[in-house]
Amino acid sequence: MDYPNDQHPGAPVKAGVPEHGRIPKYYAVKTQIAALLDELGEGEPLPTERELCARYGVARETVRQALRELLLEGRLRRAGRGTVVAGPKLEQPLALASYTEGVRRQGRTPGRTLISLDRFPCPEPLAVELGAERGEPVWHLERVLLADDERVGLESTYVTVARVPRLDADFDPDSSFYAYLHEELGIGFGAADERIETVLATPREALLIGTPPALPMLLIHRVSRDTEGRRLERVRTLFRGDRFSFTTHLPSRN
Amino acid sequence: MDYPNDQHPGAPVKAGVPEHGRIPKYYAVKTQIAALLDELGEGEPLPTERELCARYGVARETVRQALRELLLEGRLRRAGRGTVVAGPKLEQPLALASYTEGVRRQGRTPGRTLISLDRFPCPEPLAVELGAERGEPVWHLERVLLADDERVGLESTYVTVARVPRLDADFDPDSSFYAYLHEELGIGFGAADERIETVLATPREALLIGTPPALPMLLIHRVSRDTEGRRLERVRTLFRGDRFSFTTHLPSRN
Repeated sequence: MDYPNDQHPGAPVKAGVPEHGRIPKYYAVKTQIAALLDELGEGEPLPTERELCARYGVARETVRQALRELLLEGRLRRAGRGTVVAGPKLEQPLALASYTEGVRRQGRTPGRTLISLDRFPCPEPLAVELGAERGEPVWHLERVLLADDERVGLESTYVTVARVPRLDADFDPDSSFYAYLHEELGIGFGAADERIETVLATPREALLIGTPPALPMLLIHRVSRDTEGRRLERVRTLFRGDRFSFTTHLPSRN
Repeated sequence: MDYPNDQHPGAPVKAGVPEHGRIPKYYAVKTQIAALLDELGEGEPLPTERELCARYGVARETVRQALRELLLEGRLRRAGRGTVVAGPKLEQPLALASYTEGVRRQGRTPGRTLISLDRFPCPEPLAVELGAERGEPVWHLERVLLADDERVGLESTYVTVARVPRLDADFDPDSSFYAYLHEELGIGFGAADERIETVLATPREALLIGTPPALPMLLIHRVSRDTEGRRLERVRTLFRGDRFSFTTHLPSRN
């Protein structure tokens, strides 16, 4: 290995080489299976649990714990009734570009499935974020996000009915909301503020996205304005933590 | 509640209201305990497991699973031998500002503990990121990050020995590396590229940061250049997912 203590910048920090404390047995097996996955390559089926137990001389539960973590981390994925080696995470830019543009740039086909479209009276904190009056009607558009028919996220968009009066009648929920705003209403996106954090999927989210329960997710909160500086929308997007990473370019301050 | 289906933008998407499938019992208890935490307020001790079992009429294991998730999500934190209601996550800007500046802006005191400072021959992928020759000597500086004496992250910095020859002699590892570069060597930070993802803590990382094993973490990869556009450093920073969120402002494209 080129790096001290098997440490390279893309790997877990000094993975598997604690300086104090014991390495749990499942973790030692996990690093061995991870190396095996590199050899197998993307899309290849994983050996059975029985084979892995025999190969590493450990109990079934030890192999299962290792596989569970590799699945949560996106090194493995379910495919039909089996488990295969997963590809790299999708890289989505933290940028004003929409989900649609970001996924297309990766050579994948974006899609969306409508979960619900509701009108409700705007509560106080949302009113501030939307520049709306408390109690005025607001849309809540909730959609599952797809990449090549794989469910990868769940998005909630909040926008006032006054800004987008015919959302329930005119808008195809399997299309880009930003393209709709631009083409139908002449509304362009200006600046936005985003906040990103990791959360656990709730049971409902896990059902809708089809993930194992308590999978770590990346949650992006966005509040954006139109090109004239008027507050426009509040978006909450949950992405599978095992399938996505986000990139940003920080320009020089000078 | 003001939002349909108890859905508000800061909460888990329609938390606890699946449209299909059952709500697991532990999850129903978790949402009740979460509401209790809001009433108690930051820093207040949690009722005992026994009291919670009696209050919600469920088994000890059900309460434990709920508490485990609340702990992983940062709603609870360990304090001494007990568990208390945690405060909000720290918000760190995704910006060229250093960790030091970001933490100070939140009114917390930044600190660092040196884990290791090693020299090693630069391997190929790192050479590309650092603009270095393969095999030339490179520093690996590894530090635990602190906020008010709480361990919150783990940072690995890679920089060539040629750029920073006296790092082992001159640099106080409990100070800002960026301040050192600027003040001692006249090197200023220019642009950087960052990538953020969620990963599980390895056993070593959990030991060093003092977190529960397999806590979801936020991992930030950074490759940066100096103000003259020369490649400067590669950084890998792991932040506790229960203690941090990251913010960014996306300026108008027009």
